[in-house]
Amino acid sequence: MDTQLRDVSLPARLAEPDEAISMEELALAARNHGMPLEAMQHDVTPAGLHYLLVHYDIPILDERNWRLGITGHVERPAAWSLDDLRARPARTVRVTMECAGNGRARLRPRPISQPWLVEAVGTADWTGVPLRELLDEVGVDPAAVEVVFTGADHGVERGVEQDYQRGLPLDEALRDDVLLAYEMNGQPLPPQHGYPLRLVVPGWYGMAHVKWLRDISLVDTPFTGFQNAVAYRYKQTADEPGEPATRIAPRALLVPPGFPDFMSRRRVVRPGPVPLSGRAWSGHAPITRVEVSTDNGASWTDAKLDPDQGHNWAWRRWSTTWQAEPGEHVLAARATDAEGNTQPVDQPWNRGGFANNLIHQVPVTCL
Amino acid sequence: MDTQLRDVSLPARLAEPDEAISMEELALAARNHGMPLEAMQHDVTPAGLHYLLVHYDIPILDERNWRLGITGHVERPAAWSLDDLRARPARTVRVTMECAGNGRARLRPRPISQPWLVEAVGTADWTGVPLRELLDEVGVDPAAVEVVFTGADHGVERGVEQDYQRGLPLDEALRDDVLLAYEMNGQPLPPQHGYPLRLVVPGWYGMAHVKWLRDISLVDTPFTGFQNAVAYRYKQTADEPGEPATRIAPRALLVPPGFPDFMSRRRVVRPGPVPLSGRAWSGHAPITRVEVSTDNGASWTDAKLDPDQGHNWAWRRWSTTWQAEPGEHVLAARATDAEGNTQPVDQPWNRGGFANNLIHQVPVTCL
Repeated sequence: MDTQLRDVSLPARLAEPDEAISMEELALAARNHGMPLEAMQHDVTPAGLHYLLVHYDIPILDERNWRLGITGHVERPAAWSLDDLRARPARTVRVTMECAGNGRARLRPRPISQPWLVEAVGTADWTGVPLRELLDEVGVDPAAVEVVFTGADHGVERGVEQDYQRGLPLDEALRDDVLLAYEMNGQPLPPQHGYPLRLVVPGWYGMAHVKWLRDISLVDTPFTGFQNAVAYRYKQTADEPGEPATRIAPRALLVPPGFPDFMSRRRVVRPGPVPLSGRAWSGHAPITRVEVSTDNGASWTDAKLDPDQGHNWAWRRWSTTWQAEPGEHVLAARATDAEGNTQPVDQPWNRGGFANNLIHQVPVTCL
Repeated sequence: MDTQLRDVSLPARLAEPDEAISMEELALAARNHGMPLEAMQHDVTPAGLHYLLVHYDIPILDERNWRLGITGHVERPAAWSLDDLRARPARTVRVTMECAGNGRARLRPRPISQPWLVEAVGTADWTGVPLRELLDEVGVDPAAVEVVFTGADHGVERGVEQDYQRGLPLDEALRDDVLLAYEMNGQPLPPQHGYPLRLVVPGWYGMAHVKWLRDISLVDTPFTGFQNAVAYRYKQTADEPGEPATRIAPRALLVPPGFPDFMSRRRVVRPGPVPLSGRAWSGHAPITRVEVSTDNGASWTDAKLDPDQGHNWAWRRWSTTWQAEPGEHVLAARATDAEGNTQPVDQPWNRGGFANNLIHQVPVTCL
């Protein structure tokens, strides 16, 4: 059976230098979706505009038959219904989530996978139970080093049949803002975002936020499942183990100004003052600076950051005004966080196309 | 200025025979999204899974500053706030909506536009005010022949700067199930589906259901705006006027069985009985028959149609069971409506890639 599964599920690969977007990449782009950048005008991304990546199929689950168990290296294994979880004190955390592969389709050579351009991001208010409270209740065995989260989504990936599973280091799992969330923006989770329950790990790329959670298990050795040990690692060659993708690198995006051409998405603005705004975020530390260029990076000026609203893990709005003159322009934005992490002007590259946070550029025609 | 706009907004064209998906087509695929086919397990498509096509940018509107006017060839022009409309008797209609360009990316030669494969569909419960009641109130001038709907979305398309506008023949506008909808699935319209108000024309392709409505005007000659006179017409050559796209051609889609490969979306099933199901719809007449083939169209058997639930304009569920044997298979489904319209096994073609309702085929590996 393994041989046959490998026949229908090929290893990861890079596009040839002249290889255009394939029908397989297009099929992923048609199923999944980014956030149209004008949606950054909303503090919280409305349902359906938040980016979405589903590895296999969206499971259709019925909360009446659903239980969440915590097992493995714990003192008192336990299980909860969704009503049990809803009856506990709830916490809401506003979180900017981004796909680790955001920007992948612009890389050269291009890793063949979900072909994100730059829109794989969104910000939601997630409501649920802090994971730490449940872990305290079951009693973590001193031997435990990681927490393994298993979703109900099942498929085959690069030849490996699997339920989607991710291991998270115990110290991260014990942060008091890591949630088991049953609401998104005040509504029950939509099916595509993990109904009835998903993990939320603020500051980490999307792959950590396991959807359709059905099991949590504490383990005494680092988890070696596919999504941790094979996928979501920074590798320059196929053979090296690579470092794992974890926290979100800083990024600023612009709300494209003016109006678009339908087909090319080219922007058109009128001469005169043009308000520019966008959002910036980092999973490492708060955003401290956003710079904007209106001459394709030749010069940069600081944008104004909106007041800090106390959401440590959500994007921050920035704005400035551009005096547009007739002609062709390239706008750009660059974020820096409190740890000094910033965005490169040259494309970083790895075989998975992960954490590629090249500065955002928006060509604009003023006429 | 026109010359410059034409420089950034090129005419429609066909892909060269060897031309792969372009970055511009990919950018549209990343913004807009289809419905993952497993979502057909839901009678009503959850928000965020319904297909979405936005020509320009999603406008951000505030209902406090919003009014809908009806003007032109009417006896008593009038305007309403959203609260005015909400205070009137509401009607809810379940409607399957499909993009006229669904399937376009599989055409040879391929029209360069939003590159849908087969997923540009969804079914929602739309709630609002029957347009006819407002038209009766303002009094339609006997000279009126069409109703022109203007949205708040603005852009340039094939060289023409425009607000999105569509004309609808008066006899269609006076049908009692044509709605001005302010709710989708019992919630206020999401921004991307036309908040605060959109037109719903059951049975017609999506381009007729104007979003972000801000004006309705009755005219005494057929509307010659871009979306009616240039786009959304069936043309074999660029020069001919072509017939307009109106009602949805019949189509059946399968919920892909088993589980997928992440990258290729190839399906894997186990030997033995495999439940098959899907949905079928037509904008011309009720669905009367769905046939299924498990041998790539060599033979067909009738699927079972679920009982008619009285939703004249919504898809109908169908099901059957397949005895899967190890090997490679191609499943297919074909819908027929009460007027005898059915789906072709050879690809129909026009320059816009509209109303392409080739039978749905799903390759499956049984092992």
